[in-house]
Amino acid sequence: MNRNYIKLAKCFALLMIPMLGNAQDSNLSQYVKPLIGTAKMGHTFPGATVPFGSVQLSPETDTIPYAVNGVYTGDVYKYCAGYQYDDPTIVGFSHTHFSGTGHSDLGDILIMPTQGKVQLNPGTADRPQDGYRSPYSHDNEVAEANYYKVKLDKHNIHAELTTSTRVGVHRYTFPASDQSHLILDLTSGIYNYDGKNVWTFVRVLNDSTITGYRQTNGWARTRTVYFAIKTSKAFKNYGAKYLDKNVQYKGFWRKFNQEDNFPELAAHNIKMHLDFDTKEGEQVMMKVALSPVSMKNALENMHAETPNWDFEAIVGKGKSDWNRELEKFKVDMLNKEDLVNFYTSVYHANLMPTVYMDLNGEYKGLDQEIHKAEGFTNYTSFSLWDTFRAFHPWLNLVDPKRNSDMVASMMAHHDQSVLNMLPIWSHYANENWCMSGYHSVSVVVDAILKGVYKGDAEAALNACVQTANVRRYEGIGDYIDLGYVPDDKNGTSVSNTLEYAYDDWCIAQLAEKLGKTEIANEFNKRAQNWKNLYDERIGFMRPKDSKGNFREKFDVLDTHGQGFIEGNTWNYSLYVPHQPVELMETMGGQKRFETYLDSLFTMHLPDKYFENTEDITREGIIGNYVHGNEPSHHVAYLYNITKSPWKAQERIRQIIRNQYHNGPAGLGGNDDCGQMSAWYLFSSLGFYPVAPGDPHYWLGSPLVKSAEVKLEGGKLLKVLAKNQSEKNVYVSKVFWNGKELKDFKISHADLSNGGELQFVMASKPKK
Amino acid sequence: MNRNYIKLAKCFALLMIPMLGNAQDSNLSQYVKPLIGTAKMGHTFPGATVPFGSVQLSPETDTIPYAVNGVYTGDVYKYCAGYQYDDPTIVGFSHTHFSGTGHSDLGDILIMPTQGKVQLNPGTADRPQDGYRSPYSHDNEVAEANYYKVKLDKHNIHAELTTSTRVGVHRYTFPASDQSHLILDLTSGIYNYDGKNVWTFVRVLNDSTITGYRQTNGWARTRTVYFAIKTSKAFKNYGAKYLDKNVQYKGFWRKFNQEDNFPELAAHNIKMHLDFDTKEGEQVMMKVALSPVSMKNALENMHAETPNWDFEAIVGKGKSDWNRELEKFKVDMLNKEDLVNFYTSVYHANLMPTVYMDLNGEYKGLDQEIHKAEGFTNYTSFSLWDTFRAFHPWLNLVDPKRNSDMVASMMAHHDQSVLNMLPIWSHYANENWCMSGYHSVSVVVDAILKGVYKGDAEAALNACVQTANVRRYEGIGDYIDLGYVPDDKNGTSVSNTLEYAYDDWCIAQLAEKLGKTEIANEFNKRAQNWKNLYDERIGFMRPKDSKGNFREKFDVLDTHGQGFIEGNTWNYSLYVPHQPVELMETMGGQKRFETYLDSLFTMHLPDKYFENTEDITREGIIGNYVHGNEPSHHVAYLYNITKSPWKAQERIRQIIRNQYHNGPAGLGGNDDCGQMSAWYLFSSLGFYPVAPGDPHYWLGSPLVKSAEVKLEGGKLLKVLAKNQSEKNVYVSKVFWNGKELKDFKISHADLSNGGELQFVMASKPKK
Repeated sequence: MNRNYIKLAKCFALLMIPMLGNAQDSNLSQYVKPLIGTAKMGHTFPGATVPFGSVQLSPETDTIPYAVNGVYTGDVYKYCAGYQYDDPTIVGFSHTHFSGTGHSDLGDILIMPTQGKVQLNPGTADRPQDGYRSPYSHDNEVAEANYYKVKLDKHNIHAELTTSTRVGVHRYTFPASDQSHLILDLTSGIYNYDGKNVWTFVRVLNDSTITGYRQTNGWARTRTVYFAIKTSKAFKNYGAKYLDKNVQYKGFWRKFNQEDNFPELAAHNIKMHLDFDTKEGEQVMMKVALSPVSMKNALENMHAETPNWDFEAIVGKGKSDWNRELEKFKVDMLNKEDLVNFYTSVYHANLMPTVYMDLNGEYKGLDQEIHKAEGFTNYTSFSLWDTFRAFHPWLNLVDPKRNSDMVASMMAHHDQSVLNMLPIWSHYANENWCMSGYHSVSVVVDAILKGVYKGDAEAALNACVQTANVRRYEGIGDYIDLGYVPDDKNGTSVSNTLEYAYDDWCIAQLAEKLGKTEIANEFNKRAQNWKNLYDERIGFMRPKDSKGNFREKFDVLDTHGQGFIEGNTWNYSLYVPHQPVELMETMGGQKRFETYLDSLFTMHLPDKYFENTEDITREGIIGNYVHGNEPSHHVAYLYNITKSPWKAQERIRQIIRNQYHNGPAGLGGNDDCGQMSAWYLFSSLGFYPVAPGDPHYWLGSPLVKSAEVKLEGGKLLKVLAKNQSEKNVYVSKVFWNGKELKDFKISHADLSNGGELQFVMASKPKK
Repeated sequence: MNRNYIKLAKCFALLMIPMLGNAQDSNLSQYVKPLIGTAKMGHTFPGATVPFGSVQLSPETDTIPYAVNGVYTGDVYKYCAGYQYDDPTIVGFSHTHFSGTGHSDLGDILIMPTQGKVQLNPGTADRPQDGYRSPYSHDNEVAEANYYKVKLDKHNIHAELTTSTRVGVHRYTFPASDQSHLILDLTSGIYNYDGKNVWTFVRVLNDSTITGYRQTNGWARTRTVYFAIKTSKAFKNYGAKYLDKNVQYKGFWRKFNQEDNFPELAAHNIKMHLDFDTKEGEQVMMKVALSPVSMKNALENMHAETPNWDFEAIVGKGKSDWNRELEKFKVDMLNKEDLVNFYTSVYHANLMPTVYMDLNGEYKGLDQEIHKAEGFTNYTSFSLWDTFRAFHPWLNLVDPKRNSDMVASMMAHHDQSVLNMLPIWSHYANENWCMSGYHSVSVVVDAILKGVYKGDAEAALNACVQTANVRRYEGIGDYIDLGYVPDDKNGTSVSNTLEYAYDDWCIAQLAEKLGKTEIANEFNKRAQNWKNLYDERIGFMRPKDSKGNFREKFDVLDTHGQGFIEGNTWNYSLYVPHQPVELMETMGGQKRFETYLDSLFTMHLPDKYFENTEDITREGIIGNYVHGNEPSHHVAYLYNITKSPWKAQERIRQIIRNQYHNGPAGLGGNDDCGQMSAWYLFSSLGFYPVAPGDPHYWLGSPLVKSAEVKLEGGKLLKVLAKNQSEKNVYVSKVFWNGKELKDFKISHADLSNGGELQFVMASKPKK
């Protein structure tokens, strides 16, 4: 059966050479290339998963520790998703991954098939023979939606991976040996460090079933992953090593030899091996189910989701789940590479946040209590600083039920928060406090104003207001008192101030909608706080101290150490998405604003500044415009309010052509949990949500020749780009259902109701 | 109100000088002296608790670490219950304690009231000014059933403690200060060591409510205590210290000052302080509820059990719970000291095992899953090597419903055990594997054969058989193969062999009762395995190696390093409680056996051997008979099968008079979770369960003048000792309901059905 599947996979590969860019009607997963973004800064993972799956089962190519003897290694950053395309060895296959983040965690329950002498340490990339890791070649690697395959060269073992939502399924094809092993490294993890494992508990229930949990400290401070494992073949023997340092007390467990076939293990750090006899070509399968709540639930998840050992059926079920997501989009594009980019972007925008809930509805809350999700699916891993911009708006359009559940998950987080806050960047029942702003309010407000979230709007407003008033968080108290976050009290004072001001505007929008005038007034006032940091003498946003003095030593090209994060003031000064016209006026009016934008895209950013720009490759920037980070994602669209909207169209096409490629290094910066991909998807359809919370999209330049987007309730959104070509990047006219649009905007209400958005493309700008 | 209570307490003290030894009808708790056993080796605790309470709230007088830099300190042994009467300082008040154990754990959630500068380390006994601990005087200490009071001299703070089953209630009377504090030391614990705290999590819900959990390694390998705390007065301020060594990763939590009024804390080691303004004499109360399952459940337990702040009412409720247990016994004794010993023994035999279940029925199982106890109360902390002997038989007679629940708890443990074993020594959802034998089978069998446990008897038999066949545990495999545990493979081979043989006999009894002939035959055969270690050349049990050779170098007086635990071969050779007549014959017949017993009680044990006898003071032995340890608890009764039963009577009275006193040093060895006390209670009523599993008691020499024991279902067991006096220790005749008993035995069926057991006492033995 395996061989048949390989044939089928090859067959797919052949199908992938259509000369034209119009997608096949069925099996669109053929256009998904999970390897895109796995080299350099993309930080995507190539492994198997279903849409938003709890289990994202993928190879790790290295496990650089976060710190050695307390000193940060730096290298760990490369391994946010566990895999770097250029690495020569695979360490093993673990079950949880972030897609495209710039900080990391997870990598739970690492499995590796080996033969010969049991080795429980991974070894190093240059000496794989010292450990369980193996060299591999990309020639022997297949990465598809919900299917990953690789040959592990060291022992000639073929590894195949697939998943259901909560279960990772492994199939290993071994050469003949009476020393075939599956290594379970429960200490391995992404962004690991000595002491990250807080506790590990294992029970071997019988000769083919293991349950347990891994509890870690780390980016998520208090995180526990419960698991249940079954093998398709009974292991003849098993063993374990306790790697604990500093453990003074073993107690009467010394009565047992816990390293040899002992079924109940607990320690800070445990590694295990399961031993088998294998015939030549014998396949041993393993299912690993996860739960946020208990081993029992993990076992139930396994029994319900993967009741048998039909690997192909599980691959097929996942692929059809993918096709269901992909088939929402029928696109005709300029070439095959665009098709791959488009459907891989859909894929990358369907990975995170992940389902964080057992089949029985139980999940662990931020309060570390077990909750039952009533009426919604609970999700986790909200990278909100990134995803509020385009990812959640994208779901509001194409998958509103899912975004509504995500908002419900965020509201549950708020209700469980002892600080009464919506999430900032949360994962696995933890807040990790990463990045600036309180952008969950943007997601909540946008979903309510677009009619997507139908829960209690007043409770949601209340949660937003509470979040925006937690004085102790990141300068909010000073921001409320002074109208800005002061430079002397906060390291990212400008980023915070600008983002808070936008978030506050979102809150005001919801308050107005609910008739809460007092709140609306308060937050409309706060929404203008960006003005307090604009230094008209230099024409940029600039850090200001508590006494009201702008920072003296200030470099407009630099990012670090002067009030910004992931963007210098050239980029960040444009971060007033909610009041762009006021911003333009503040910055000197239409002409000067247009010149500013021109300069941004055309100036040269010297190397020393580039090095201070995080999370991107040199390819991730155009001039000084940084697409590989998020703060400027709306910037190209700002030309729409200048006298030259055609420059928006030109730059958008340029960004698409510059920043999104097929191939492992195809992403110029972190995909950031689908935000980069969502930008691509919106922009290639010709519109973008410049300020979520404003239920309008700004028009740009479509990449598609045509597209049909199936919306909820059977409605159809058609996009047609007449005269589309590589050179015809300019829009001469736009029609919505035949009526010309003059202001480069269209409402969500219109789009989500279905209809045809027709662009007439031209090779020359309409000046 | 406090002052009234103090007056009342003094009033109790006055009442405690009756000239005669007949107990008052009501308020028998006046005879309970929790301080008995708190000096030297008794290892009892003086604090407040209700019968079998989950919370046992008691002062700690020191917190010696188990090991420093990996080296065992030795001193920690003194602090099994956290309190040593001779210590000059009190460290604080913690919520969980074992009573009378010889190894330890617990001491969770230590609270200490202080004033002035916040000190978060305890300081040392000789320099209490360096920490939060305080000197105190026994003159200012009151220890009663469910009430403890002490004045803390350092800051002149009066501390009072009381409890409900799951809630500890503190009342602190402060002098005036704007710097009054309650210290919460979440790192403190009994048998602590660096690294024992695995994880600590705290949420400050509002200015008077805190929830959290403490997760530890230790004697219980994977233990978590969840708590909820409320103060009667809002704290004006609070703070915390993270004491973690080796923590490399703090993440973005650095954005907050977590030490100052920060409501969400998590780390390996956390200490906290709550700050108050107090007026002179102001009382601040604190409730601390525990749960084995969740913070939420702890809070629910608190609300349900202690809905208000009426300290006196909580004291009173607990005292009436105690009186309900004490009033089962109406005794007339020779003097007041005997009354105190009797009722304090009842008290000590009502402390452990403890309720381990929330009010909603949830508890954590050995499998680390949350279970719901259906139809029984779940208990934990089973010190079975001790308690199978007399404690559980005692409950079978006087509190059968409770023992039935304990058996149900043990069966649940078995069902949750991945080794398919009944508990050996278990506490807090953990097996700690302490001591030898698998004596849960004795408890299970005895409870079934006495009609106490009415659950599934076949399942129980199956659990016993499975437990007895876990080959990897403590030499069981060799024991099955060879008929004994070989000396070269196990350090306590003789103790194990003898105890297994007895346990096996228990299993055979149940198998016979259920008509399982094959099992009965198998285990009746195993029950004779004690014979394999009897060396007739020396007349003692003796270690034997796998080849069948007795150990050459062997010292009949020594305990350690030659196959025994807590008893040398002089004592252990008599450990065949199920086949005493066969033992006597094996050992040379009636006369030689009697001489052996005489020698045991009269010989001198040189100091060097005494030092190798664990867990007892010099007063804990009579000759070479060790009453402070358990293996000989049945030995005095063995005279009944010699020609001189009168020697049993003499020795029993001697043991009572030697081993049980009023006063803190009143116990000559560890009370061992009520086993020492249960021996006293049986023996002072005139009978003892020599071999639990045999539903008969052996008669001895009563201490009471008369006693009425209220049995379940309103039946009454009367014991009358005619002509009882200090000198009249000999029994000339015994009658059961008027019928003379000739064989020094009476059945459980008779006794538990009610009636009168009349002893006629005499000053001279009946030879």
